[in-house]
Amino acid sequence: MNEFVKTFEAIDKPWTPQEFEANIRAVGVERYHDKHEFHKLLHGGKLNKGQVAAWALNRYCYQEAVPRKDAALMSRVYDREFRREWIHRVHDHDGMLPDEQGGIERWLVLTDCLGLDREYVTSMRGALPATRFAVEAYVRFVVEQPLVIAVASSLTELFAPSIHRERIAGMLANYDFVNDDVMAYFKRRLSQAPRDASFALEFIKTNARTREMQEACVDAVRFKCNVLWAQLDALYLAYVQGMVPPGAYKPE
Amino acid sequence: MNEFVKTFEAIDKPWTPQEFEANIRAVGVERYHDKHEFHKLLHGGKLNKGQVAAWALNRYCYQEAVPRKDAALMSRVYDREFRREWIHRVHDHDGMLPDEQGGIERWLVLTDCLGLDREYVTSMRGALPATRFAVEAYVRFVVEQPLVIAVASSLTELFAPSIHRERIAGMLANYDFVNDDVMAYFKRRLSQAPRDASFALEFIKTNARTREMQEACVDAVRFKCNVLWAQLDALYLAYVQGMVPPGAYKPE
Repeated sequence: MNEFVKTFEAIDKPWTPQEFEANIRAVGVERYHDKHEFHKLLHGGKLNKGQVAAWALNRYCYQEAVPRKDAALMSRVYDREFRREWIHRVHDHDGMLPDEQGGIERWLVLTDCLGLDREYVTSMRGALPATRFAVEAYVRFVVEQPLVIAVASSLTELFAPSIHRERIAGMLANYDFVNDDVMAYFKRRLSQAPRDASFALEFIKTNARTREMQEACVDAVRFKCNVLWAQLDALYLAYVQGMVPPGAYKPE
Repeated sequence: MNEFVKTFEAIDKPWTPQEFEANIRAVGVERYHDKHEFHKLLHGGKLNKGQVAAWALNRYCYQEAVPRKDAALMSRVYDREFRREWIHRVHDHDGMLPDEQGGIERWLVLTDCLGLDREYVTSMRGALPATRFAVEAYVRFVVEQPLVIAVASSLTELFAPSIHRERIAGMLANYDFVNDDVMAYFKRRLSQAPRDASFALEFIKTNARTREMQEACVDAVRFKCNVLWAQLDALYLAYVQGMVPPGAYKPE
């Protein structure tokens, strides 16, 4: 083997599927938003009702964006079988006619119980600008990046079930304004997220064939963690530190 | 005059040019980023060199985006005279061949003097994700909104000269690592910003003909203030409160 080939291989040899998955999962350990201080306060019962309402109000913007993100991704896919799999994500969030309610409706049950007006929540007028910027960056990412990388950005779902289990237990135990009905969103995600993550993980293992693409997929998961982290940063500054930006929701 | 016409007029009567301008200027009083705590710390000499470096490193992302924003806006304009006016904004930031340096280069003189590596600054690897989300939201806004509203979003320049004057005086007085050369960016903006703002203000006064469009222009200035405010929020949490997100710049 000559030197050129050796150097080339040393730089570009693709990871094995196991190495690739391990590198994806390592991002979660390093920077998934369950490491964030706001998350710890929320789940540890350290927030008051107004602070939880601020979280729910802002997180609504993320919920609202997810089906747009998934529709945007589908709009780029020529493979019918892929779209037939992916579309259930939109149904999970939007619900399906005639009468199935989706994740967004379940989220509004949560904001109802926190005393927030639905029109105010869905108008997103009181949301933190940083929340909306982060969420729309995610939608744009999925529109603009190569498809494999766009799919990879969904893989924070690999890390979601443990945060949802923790959230259900922590919020039920610690907040008297939260009950089982209200936690329905998270219970549903316990089964939805692993199915979605498993499909997306297999897809990127099959389709990210070069080391460069694999690394770009790992970066996409980092990007998505940043989208989630930035939302909690903004909540922390506004509603723990008390620096609410002009025009944003102020708890009574 | 019948009732219908009266009601219609009550809802939709356009503001006079003076009222319109006053409503634009009121946004600055309410929420321009000179009201932000981080701004006060920066100009009052209350930050250390690492904190100022974090500010300069993040604000670089905004500088870097502005000529892309202006090119995107120009790409939508069919009026040659408009483009001939607007293009000087791109030159102001990028400089003009053969040898004129622009605002971005002057910004890098500032980051140099703060001990930051140019490659690191321009890679934007160490910038806060919230900074990049906010900045790209501004670029998208200009691409997606009607042209009059896109132009209106530039009008924070109406409020800029006073912040720049304050910044030059405050930073020169308070930081021994800042000198006249380093403040060249802001000195230059003292003359550039009023020219730009004046053109944009005349343009929207002429072209926003309905009350609805005028209100959308005022909202565009609010949006832009949010873009600026969110950047200082993120800096405050990371570098005053010390909650630096994973992967972001850490002062030594």
